[in-house]
Amino acid sequence: VLGIVNGTTNFILTKMDEQGADYAEVLAEAQALGYAEADPTADVEGFDAAAKAAILAELAFHTRVTADDVHREGMSSVTASDIEAARAMGFVIKLLAVAERVDDGVIVRVHPTMVPRTHPLASVREAFNAVFIEADAAGQMMFYGRGAGGAPTASAVLGDLVAVARNLTSGGRGPRESVYADLPVLPVGDAMTRYYINLEVADRPGVLASIAQAFAAEGVSIQVVRQDGHGDDAGLVVRTHRATDGALSRTVERLRTLDTVKSVLGVMRVEGEATP
Amino acid sequence: VLGIVNGTTNFILTKMDEQGADYAEVLAEAQALGYAEADPTADVEGFDAAAKAAILAELAFHTRVTADDVHREGMSSVTASDIEAARAMGFVIKLLAVAERVDDGVIVRVHPTMVPRTHPLASVREAFNAVFIEADAAGQMMFYGRGAGGAPTASAVLGDLVAVARNLTSGGRGPRESVYADLPVLPVGDAMTRYYINLEVADRPGVLASIAQAFAAEGVSIQVVRQDGHGDDAGLVVRTHRATDGALSRTVERLRTLDTVKSVLGVMRVEGEATP
Repeated sequence: VLGIVNGTTNFILTKMDEQGADYAEVLAEAQALGYAEADPTADVEGFDAAAKAAILAELAFHTRVTADDVHREGMSSVTASDIEAARAMGFVIKLLAVAERVDDGVIVRVHPTMVPRTHPLASVREAFNAVFIEADAAGQMMFYGRGAGGAPTASAVLGDLVAVARNLTSGGRGPRESVYADLPVLPVGDAMTRYYINLEVADRPGVLASIAQAFAAEGVSIQVVRQDGHGDDAGLVVRTHRATDGALSRTVERLRTLDTVKSVLGVMRVEGEATP
Repeated sequence: VLGIVNGTTNFILTKMDEQGADYAEVLAEAQALGYAEADPTADVEGFDAAAKAAILAELAFHTRVTADDVHREGMSSVTASDIEAARAMGFVIKLLAVAERVDDGVIVRVHPTMVPRTHPLASVREAFNAVFIEADAAGQMMFYGRGAGGAPTASAVLGDLVAVARNLTSGGRGPRESVYADLPVLPVGDAMTRYYINLEVADRPGVLASIAQAFAAEGVSIQVVRQDGHGDDAGLVVRTHRATDGALSRTVERLRTLDTVKSVLGVMRVEGEATP
């Protein structure tokens, strides 16, 4: 389950993407428009999305999940240059709520994510929300609509009340919390993810070899590597194949210790296959 | 309610759009892949979509609607040049099922339709289906998934059976046909639509004036007009504002009688606003 479940942050990321504006600038615009609150912490640090991710995970996997079980990273650290780098590779950055069933349990996380521009979630703009589901038999599905506003919210609440009333008058038991599967909620380190890593590197022979060695040491396979510039501006962008989140974060730690790496400019998870 | 509800025709239109191929060519490919049957009539002439449009309209408006009530135009007459012309204006052509509530009743229709490329339905590719809903309070919503294939179909049917079984065991009455509103189903001529009209015209002064007069005589307002080429290749493309389908089709009849109009190359309805 991949969800864009917070309208405020999606509005901010859409404006940053389409106007090339910086976070602080767009946040101020969102606050002026009433889309973001004076204290935007609950939205931009992902607390609201984490609570919704817990609800989605519980519904999807019949397992009790609370907001505290959700690995949470906000989007306030996403920069205009992250978004520009994503764009150059055909990706857009979204704050995603991700709930997944793995062999031994479920993993639930919220973090800024690179999504291919051809993925259905990439077209979810401004304050719209969407939940994208990939299921064994049913395949890919998406449910899309307004994520905020007085009338849409009232309509959703009223719809739920009508369903409850109909259920009561018809004598049914109706839906209730369903947690029979009781699966363990696993740490984010166990998740299989892909990383995008943006490095500032020394401009000399052997740099790529030393970096590739750091990935190999953690068993992480590189999908794409791109070298840009030279001299003081030498940059290297790496996208990985799927590996455990733990192995990927250990790889980043290794990269930080290399003398061929001047700095780690950006690290972001990648989700969603490009559509055929 | 705007629906892409037939996977075969959406596959064909997607391929025509993305490969610039002609209908017959893509139909043969779709047949070879097993997406289209040897006799594709039910799909390409819109019979399958009309049956589904009737079901959607009945669910949406609590009014009995049968396939015979649905105005139906197939997509076998859509040409590569229609698609090219749509592309030039920022549109894609989809076979849409349209069910709408108007003041005096409901209107249900299936026809090839120009949709803005920024509309969520434009990104529904190949054999995927989607239903896009615009509601007074809830605003815009879309529900998207695979429209064909053994496993997705089995999953949907099994889901329905589980819902029925749960309903029976819990003592509920469950959903049933709901046609209490009993609204009249009105003819397509009463629908408010927009038209795209592609004309081959004489290359001489006064052409636009005579054509504009034909629109004005039926009370149809022009939104965009574009003149291309000159001499024997002079072309004029018109997109209208909303008017009754009846007035628009009478306008086209008027255009056919003008000596400034050599031929009416294409006429297609336009649905969906571009997203903000």
